[in-house]
Amino acid sequence: MDKKVSRRQLLTKAAFLSVGAVIGKFGSSLADNNNETTSSQKSHPVNIWPWPYVELDPAETAEIAYQEWYRLWCGGTVIYSIFSQLAKKVGEPYKSFPVDPFAIFEGGLAGWGTLCGSLNGASVVASCIIGPMTQEGCEDGHIIASNMLDWYSHANMPIYVPKKPKANKTSIVHTISDSPLCHVSVGRWMQASGYAINSPERKDRCARVAASVAYKLVEELNKWKQGKYSEDIAWLAPKKAKITAQFNCASCHGAHIPKPPMSGKKL
Amino acid sequence: MDKKVSRRQLLTKAAFLSVGAVIGKFGSSLADNNNETTSSQKSHPVNIWPWPYVELDPAETAEIAYQEWYRLWCGGTVIYSIFSQLAKKVGEPYKSFPVDPFAIFEGGLAGWGTLCGSLNGASVVASCIIGPMTQEGCEDGHIIASNMLDWYSHANMPIYVPKKPKANKTSIVHTISDSPLCHVSVGRWMQASGYAINSPERKDRCARVAASVAYKLVEELNKWKQGKYSEDIAWLAPKKAKITAQFNCASCHGAHIPKPPMSGKKL
Repeated sequence: MDKKVSRRQLLTKAAFLSVGAVIGKFGSSLADNNNETTSSQKSHPVNIWPWPYVELDPAETAEIAYQEWYRLWCGGTVIYSIFSQLAKKVGEPYKSFPVDPFAIFEGGLAGWGTLCGSLNGASVVASCIIGPMTQEGCEDGHIIASNMLDWYSHANMPIYVPKKPKANKTSIVHTISDSPLCHVSVGRWMQASGYAINSPERKDRCARVAASVAYKLVEELNKWKQGKYSEDIAWLAPKKAKITAQFNCASCHGAHIPKPPMSGKKL
Repeated sequence: MDKKVSRRQLLTKAAFLSVGAVIGKFGSSLADNNNETTSSQKSHPVNIWPWPYVELDPAETAEIAYQEWYRLWCGGTVIYSIFSQLAKKVGEPYKSFPVDPFAIFEGGLAGWGTLCGSLNGASVVASCIIGPMTQEGCEDGHIIASNMLDWYSHANMPIYVPKKPKANKTSIVHTISDSPLCHVSVGRWMQASGYAINSPERKDRCARVAASVAYKLVEELNKWKQGKYSEDIAWLAPKKAKITAQFNCASCHGAHIPKPPMSGKKL
């Protein structure tokens, strides 16, 4: 632990996704420069679900996500790509949602390599729009989020091809993460491509992954809006594994997978 | 994949943290039953940081978090424990923040065992109050979040003892997760205690962990408010590991830790 390093040095020299200068004290606002959150527009209460949703174009959303990744990184841009459009088309409660702080999701939460920020952002979007699982009739938010993690783990990423790629312009390496974890997803791609964490190619790859997640999420939300969302859930860990878990136990445990205690019994 | 199971069955029989009946179509509101998000109270713009913060009592916050875990689970309750108090003491933008959808953070995101939901919630709180790292002068939010993950990984959990525990009433097993991941944190405790995922003891343990995280986060936010927050950052993965990562490579990789590609070089 390097106790002498300042936060300024950390953030300018070492941060995972330093992609540009900081942009001042004020964030971009979904309220289109209306700094007051109390818009005069007819508002939908923040605690009644589902929030009003109009179908979005997946490709247009993905392109917004790709571009905005270079400002808000993976988690922030997935939320921005959808909520910024809904703020214009619908208004509240999207206009008052604080998108920029979700930049914290980058790099599997502040660079820790845990949950991919794109998936974290997608889960927040699904749960905000459809509602929390704690509310009757709102279960689809939880299910869409869970299915997004499963889909991501098995997808040959990145899927989305931006209109004007900032790197990997002629071709890009694709990898299957077999995991929703940032470290595994990024690590497998770095190993296959040979590109370093701070390379423009790796950044373009993660921007495309975020765009791919935004694309897929809009497809799912549109199906849900149309009443066509399939309720199949691909992985429900506590039921199957008797512990919160991914599906790929052997990936970390090898052949010696511990057996979880069963309900009501002491070991 | 069990394609015939309905979402109702999933949510009533199998969900990781099913702790009670769903509570109706409407969530509890931080606006104290004022369903309009456009409060007449003087409001602070959602996109100007830092948000107004008044020092909170860590123990009181932890007790709220413990109790509310049984409604919103780990991530939702950490956010609720702090934002509900600030909604009363400060008003906006806390009153309009949609807390309940962050129930999605439970079980390492919908039961997937990735990032501990308490830490995910704590990161959202720190980043919303202090501001996103993308904004000049707001870096402490990112740093507090990162340090929370490090602190959690090395803490002998759970730390907080509730006033009236719902289980583990005479004693409780403590474990060190050595990881910010739900699966590892919960798994180590289950192994040491012998209690199953659906046991009242495991639920009480996770409620105490969420309360411990809320306690620590308020301590950090209070220090930040007093201008006494230490900027030391305990783990900055991309700088040290050259990849987004935890600190404990050997835990999954064993002796054969892959060497990440270096900047600008192809393998």
